[in-house]
Amino acid sequence: MTADPYVHPQALCESGDVGPASRIWAFAHIMEGAHVGADCNIGGHVFVEDGAWIGDGVTVKNMVMVWKRIRIEDGAFIGPGVVFTNDRYARSARLKDVPAITRRYAAEANWILDTCVGAGATIGAGAVILPGLTIGRFATVGAGAVVTAPVGAHELVTGNPARRTGYVGRCGVPLEQPEPDGWRCPESGERYRLGRQGLERVED
Amino acid sequence: MTADPYVHPQALCESGDVGPASRIWAFAHIMEGAHVGADCNIGGHVFVEDGAWIGDGVTVKNMVMVWKRIRIEDGAFIGPGVVFTNDRYARSARLKDVPAITRRYAAEANWILDTCVGAGATIGAGAVILPGLTIGRFATVGAGAVVTAPVGAHELVTGNPARRTGYVGRCGVPLEQPEPDGWRCPESGERYRLGRQGLERVED
Amino acid sequence: MTADPYVHPQALCESGDVGPASRIWAFAHIMEGAHVGADCNIGGHVFVEDGAWIGDGVTVKNMVMVWKRIRIEDGAFIGPGVVFTNDRYARSARLKDVPAITRRYAAEANWILDTCVGAGATIGAGAVILPGLTIGRFATVGAGAVVTAPVGAHELVTGNPARRTGYVGRCGVPLEQPEPDGWRCPESGERYRLGRQGLERVED
Repeated sequence: MTADPYVHPQALCESGDVGPASRIWAFAHIMEGAHVGADCNIGGHVFVEDGAWIGDGVTVKNMVMVWKRIRIEDGAFIGPGVVFTNDRYARSARLKDVPAITRRYAAEANWILDTCVGAGATIGAGAVILPGLTIGRFATVGAGAVVTAPVGAHELVTGNPARRTGYVGRCGVPLEQPEPDGWRCPESGERYRLGRQGLERVED
Repeated sequence: MTADPYVHPQALCESGDVGPASRIWAFAHIMEGAHVGADCNIGGHVFVEDGAWIGDGVTVKNMVMVWKRIRIEDGAFIGPGVVFTNDRYARSARLKDVPAITRRYAAEANWILDTCVGAGATIGAGAVILPGLTIGRFATVGAGAVVTAPVGAHELVTGNPARRTGYVGRCGVPLEQPEPDGWRCPESGERYRLGRQGLERVED
Repeated sequence: MTADPYVHPQALCESGDVGPASRIWAFAHIMEGAHVGADCNIGGHVFVEDGAWIGDGVTVKNMVMVWKRIRIEDGAFIGPGVVFTNDRYARSARLKDVPAITRRYAAEANWILDTCVGAGATIGAGAVILPGLTIGRFATVGAGAVVTAPVGAHELVTGNPARRTGYVGRCGVPLEQPEPDGWRCPESGERYRLGRQGLERVED
């Protein structure tokens, strides 16, 4: 067993910064200057741009694009066909006959914003994440959601625009609320409560 | 004219179970263990996982992913960029520092559910299909819909979440309802009525 | 500096009708019979079908599909993962045991409609555009929107289905409305007013 990353013969990996035991599948393209941590699974047809940062133990399913200024922390799950963004007011950088300011903004990317997906979070299949947002630790974005506002830790959001429709535990299972200020995971038995930073796990 | 499947030189077809006269286009990847029937058209950049099952005469447009436990019956049309799912509460299988039950669920895929697209159905472009659902025969899912509940035969559903907004005939054209318990296709003249299994065609 | 188009070694460009200084990136596929103008940027994993028409100075981000009968005018920006459509009532062309009319429609594509994206417009990431619509000059379709109706010049539309939620100037920035019949771009200072063709820029 080797700890070197595995790169499928039909993938294109230009980055020297891919961690041990990570796997990159067919027709994926990892640009030079992208960071991929250890023990990741990067699915087929994925694109990772220079300046993207992916931690350890991350699963990126097929046909996801990870742009510069996108940070994905350890153990997150990015579902198939998820679309990230990094530009608030995009116009083609090749527009003609427009004021200098328009060309300048488009070309210099002054409107590029940072996105962060917290450790252990899940972004559901086909979700779209607007630029400049943070998705909290162990949050879950439902499949097909369009996220236009920050998502707190352990929050479950769904719809277009995405709204909070519940909470999830570290397992990803929706939490039950047996008492007004307490939540419980029906699978693991873990308990949670609202703290100053949003939902927090109660350590026994 | 040959009945062998055609595989584009830039496609990657690892399955020996692709039927005659089917065509697989550039940058598509069909894994070993996937079934593709006869006379199918599998568009460019499509991914078909081992354990997926695609019947005869199916059209799968570009950039669709078909996972294990997804079954697509004869003559269905899967629009471009459709996103299927098979995991109800996905988390990265490589999460660390979480309870054993979380890792077990993620790794063993205990939450993988079956999806079935019925014969002659259409899934519109960019639609997202949540796991564990059946799309009925000759149903139509509108472009961009997010399907969170089963869809009956001949139903037309649209929106996020998808709701029934009408019925369609075998042609795909919305049906007219000239009388309280009868529907009619304005193109083919075929008539339909509500039966115990949903909308049924009236055979003359 | 050369004016020839650049085609990445892993791209597949079969068209001889790509303008000078355009760039086509890895795993993109441009079919013979597609027109791509000068000074365009065609992202990785993009598919451009024969009969598609892309003007000059257009940015097409990764994983977009541009079908025949889609026209994209000069200086437009097509965000990542945008899904166009061209078929109003799609069914598989390989359906069996259906009336002749159904097969005829599916095979002859009688329901194929024209789409036009106006000069300088932006289609946000992951948006879905239904067939037969015009997106006006310098309009902006928000990320994740599902466009089911025409969009006027300088309109900003968001949601599923997409609704007008404001106006944008040539920069792409939302306009302010300091007086009942006047709009102003806070970045460039350009002024706009409603004319017979929708929002128009006031030339000083």
